Amino acid sequence: METTAVVVGTGNVATHLVRALQQSDVQVLMLYGRNREHADEAARLLGVSSTTDWKKLPSGAHFYLYAVSDNALAEVLAHTIAPQAIHLHTAGSMGLELFPRHKPRHGVLYPLQTFSKSKPLNFRTVPLFVEASSPDVLAEVNRLASLLADKVYEADSQQRRRLHLAAVFACNFVNHLYAIAGDLVQSSHLSFEVLRPLIAETASKIDFLSPQEAQTGPAVRRDDAVMKKHLALLNDHPEYQKIYELISRSISGD
Amino acid sequence: METTAVVVGTGNVATHLVRALQQSDVQVLMLYGRNREHADEAARLLGVSSTTDWKKLPSGAHFYLYAVSDNALAEVLAHTIAPQAIHLHTAGSMGLELFPRHKPRHGVLYPLQTFSKSKPLNFRTVPLFVEASSPDVLAEVNRLASLLADKVYEADSQQRRRLHLAAVFACNFVNHLYAIAGDLVQSSHLSFEVLRPLIAETASKIDFLSPQEAQTGPAVRRDDAVMKKHLALLNDHPEYQKIYELISRSISGD
Repeated sequence: METTAVVVGTGNVATHLVRALQQSDVQVLMLYGRNREHADEAARLLGVSSTTDWKKLPSGAHFYLYAVSDNALAEVLAHTIAPQAIHLHTAGSMGLELFPRHKPRHGVLYPLQTFSKSKPLNFRTVPLFVEASSPDVLAEVNRLASLLADKVYEADSQQRRRLHLAAVFACNFVNHLYAIAGDLVQSSHLSFEVLRPLIAETASKIDFLSPQEAQTGPAVRRDDAVMKKHLALLNDHPEYQKIYELISRSISGD
Repeated sequence: METTAVVVGTGNVATHLVRALQQSDVQVLMLYGRNREHADEAARLLGVSSTTDWKKLPSGAHFYLYAVSDNALAEVLAHTIAPQAIHLHTAGSMGLELFPRHKPRHGVLYPLQTFSKSKPLNFRTVPLFVEASSPDVLAEVNRLASLLADKVYEADSQQRRRLHLAAVFACNFVNHLYAIAGDLVQSSHLSFEVLRPLIAETASKIDFLSPQEAQTGPAVRRDDAVMKKHLALLNDHPEYQKIYELISRSISGD
């Protein structure tokens, strides 16, 4: 019997999730979006029907997947019906306590990845972290997750929150450092392009070495002369100066 | 006529540079190292003869390349002879004023990359930034650089210092954030492995999007509830808390 799903949300995670479901032969019955324009656009892009009306959502799907912002999650969970189905949210920071009583079969399918609509991504490589309200629901969630990706891990809410926090450091903050570096090279009339090999090598190095072994630069060498010159170069950027000082101290352990 | 070089230094940059010279059919006549053990090891690894004695360095090479720490550079430049040769240092933060009067033909060949001895790397992909004491020396340095790598740019000392600073953000600081993220997942009894796809995708995203477009996470969404929870999770790590607050503020622009 074919597995069916309804997806609530039209953002980056929802978009990539719908594609992954379709590629795994899970039939996506419908997409819900609060905003008519976004819902129409996502539906057209993904070849799925969409609605902005809770009453029009099918009630007979196997899975209801919620990929909405954390603060919309509780409200959205109150709207859908389907008490027999398995309801899964995809949020790193939210626990199981959010699910209302009329959704006894529930859980989490958290993809540890950064998604942008316009950047294609092989969902099979995304590590999925699952949690569920009971062992039999967990078995079903594991089955669904294995259809979508190669690496599925069980993680409780506490572990998942820490994973999400780790992801903020390894992805969101890293990306912001790319932005700062880009700002600095561009102020030297050079293109962001010149940084790409360095960025790629930095990320690929840790496939061979631990980040501790891979660490290079003036802070780990405690090269105070270079660090002083760098801080002076940042005189017009007090915010970058603070970041420079704080991370350098954290690297050198001073 | 074959191009010849002498390399001063036995560290990460020197090692990768010697390999690149050998692969470009530049004959490396000798390697100088201050420390006997390091010099012997590098020489064996690279199949080059080495010395710890300045007097034994050949004086007839076309290029003398200095890949030593910034604070050793001035002293090292005083030791070598060969007034007709071209002398090049490889340091991001140092200018041309370091070269003594008896080395009138000099310049810089700065590779914008992170090097670790044990991690192989295709030197042809490394962006090289060159500068020289005169147009005719610059032509020679450009020729050597083009033998080694595909992208060669001219950059004055001021631009190169800013490039080096940018590299600290895009590489050294990024790597340290990987270390922090690894610390956090390991404290959740999960392996650093689970972060690799996220790290790879974060680095590869900026081949498609600018870092500004690629930015995701609670800070760019100004999701205060999630950020508060993250800070609470970091109560045992005041240092990580400070980094979290500072970079989040820098992302959100508050």
